[in-house]
Amino acid sequence: MDDDTAAAPATAAAAVGCGVIGAGWIARLRLSGIDVRAYDPAPTALDVITQVHDNARLAWRELDLEPDDDAIGSLTMCATIDEAVAEADFIVESVPERLDLKHATLVAIDAASIPTAIIASSTSGFKPSVLAEPLTHPRRLVVGHPFNPVYLLPLVEVVGGADTADDVIECAMGLYRSLGMHPLRVRAEIDAHIADRLLEAVWREALWLVKDGIATTEEIDDSIRYGFGLRWAQMGLFETYRIAGGLGGMRHFISQFGECLSWPWTKLMDVPELTDELIDTIASQSDEQSGHLTVRELERIRDRNVAAMMLALERNEWGAGQVVAEMRQRGAVR
Amino acid sequence: MDDDTAAAPATAAAAVGCGVIGAGWIARLRLSGIDVRAYDPAPTALDVITQVHDNARLAWRELDLEPDDDAIGSLTMCATIDEAVAEADFIVESVPERLDLKHATLVAIDAASIPTAIIASSTSGFKPSVLAEPLTHPRRLVVGHPFNPVYLLPLVEVVGGADTADDVIECAMGLYRSLGMHPLRVRAEIDAHIADRLLEAVWREALWLVKDGIATTEEIDDSIRYGFGLRWAQMGLFETYRIAGGLGGMRHFISQFGECLSWPWTKLMDVPELTDELIDTIASQSDEQSGHLTVRELERIRDRNVAAMMLALERNEWGAGQVVAEMRQRGAVR
Repeated sequence: MDDDTAAAPATAAAAVGCGVIGAGWIARLRLSGIDVRAYDPAPTALDVITQVHDNARLAWRELDLEPDDDAIGSLTMCATIDEAVAEADFIVESVPERLDLKHATLVAIDAASIPTAIIASSTSGFKPSVLAEPLTHPRRLVVGHPFNPVYLLPLVEVVGGADTADDVIECAMGLYRSLGMHPLRVRAEIDAHIADRLLEAVWREALWLVKDGIATTEEIDDSIRYGFGLRWAQMGLFETYRIAGGLGGMRHFISQFGECLSWPWTKLMDVPELTDELIDTIASQSDEQSGHLTVRELERIRDRNVAAMMLALERNEWGAGQVVAEMRQRGAVR
Repeated sequence: MDDDTAAAPATAAAAVGCGVIGAGWIARLRLSGIDVRAYDPAPTALDVITQVHDNARLAWRELDLEPDDDAIGSLTMCATIDEAVAEADFIVESVPERLDLKHATLVAIDAASIPTAIIASSTSGFKPSVLAEPLTHPRRLVVGHPFNPVYLLPLVEVVGGADTADDVIECAMGLYRSLGMHPLRVRAEIDAHIADRLLEAVWREALWLVKDGIATTEEIDDSIRYGFGLRWAQMGLFETYRIAGGLGGMRHFISQFGECLSWPWTKLMDVPELTDELIDTIASQSDEQSGHLTVRELERIRDRNVAAMMLALERNEWGAGQVVAEMRQRGAVR
């Protein structure tokens, strides 16, 4: 029975944990026509799900991909994990990033669900083998790590553990594609997968810059969005640096750059201590920078910008735009 | 005489060092209607300048900002630094990143130019106070660090040294604005300024991922361009994380995130050794990833994508798009 995991796209999904990430999954699943049963003990869960769904519809409208009302999957709020997952063939776990909570939740899902259903954890940090330790059916556990806003950014990092079956990974990859995503197969289990390791490195460096009074949160943000951020929306750092190497390409670039690696440019040899004072500094600088807009307004601005850039890349037949083009060609979402 | 540095935009510019960065400055200056006299001892300099200028015209055409032929500043190639800088009121230095070479070049510029002319170094790493050490007129030296492609990305980091006059910095800021850029005043001198410190942190982490066989150059690039790269083209990391904090904002986000700072997620405590083997691995993975396109083709694709995203952001009246809108409103470039 463990050997015939469904290879078809999900037809009945469940979401356990409905914060911003879980709600983002729910929105993407429903906009793709899939019914979702959801569980989250927080009294605010339905509000979050509704707000995120509204944002997601606006974003898909910007992409000219908004489905008709009757093509949107249903939402059923459930009182227990068992109720949510019992009939699902695809279960997304997005509870807070604490191992004890992840384990307890995954064990409950494992016990209450069809053993062939795929369990996909949204964890940003844990290895799938660690998450799978207490499970009876570890072969169907996979990490599917998305990026906020989940209903809009195409990337999902897909990582299998030691016991995860290949067909489960393949099935998950296909499912994510059917949701209009770009699944990136991460071949090795490491803490924080790939993208969050890069983000963590930037975050630490940025904290130092604020702590040392070199730059404010707004200045750091501007150093990103008026410069290399525009490059990285369409090419990553290696392809960008390949160009910087000129006709000598990557080999020329890296040979030049090599020397700098041992320069004392970064403070990352230490971990900055997150004191109350540093938290205050960052929080008040962030208020100064963005406090004139509510988080809801910022979300809408972000989504409108990202959607507009994805449409621009679609016209150029490149990168994230190609994912949108595939969604449109499939027409499955209309 | 040192006290009346011209406050008006440049009318006669010089460029010393004409690689990809210097040539990018020349293109931006000329497309903004400013005549440029250029010096570079490399026999290929004019080829580079011409190729970059052609790319820049195409990019400005994409932005619907291409000037008529007769509105483009002239280019005069010079046989010596003296010839290039003698009459200029704005001088850009973009020679390779070696302190001895920077010093020799800046001393020559300092001696041969009008003492009130601004000297702007493109250095990505050195502090202006260090660059200014051997100069007779250090008050007019400023760092103006641009990002490739210089003719397209708005960001320029502006840093003054201990002896740099405030009016020189103000004048440089105004000049960069007149070139359609977003000058970011960096208030403290540190090696690598701001953006390159963030880039350096990512680069080191990425090298570890490749070295350890966790991910290829293409997989790392995809983890950027299908995910957080799209966010960073329009908001930086702090504004993005403010949203992730939900209604609790930045304070909530950072308090949650704090714990992770001491997790062993990053390899950045060490500097990876750039062995021949690692260089080979990266160069061949990069060939595999992008070798089907020439660097020229990659440049055009990048520029077309960045221009299209900037136009999309202009329609949304946001970020880098607002810089384009200002260029258009000024009409000075037409």
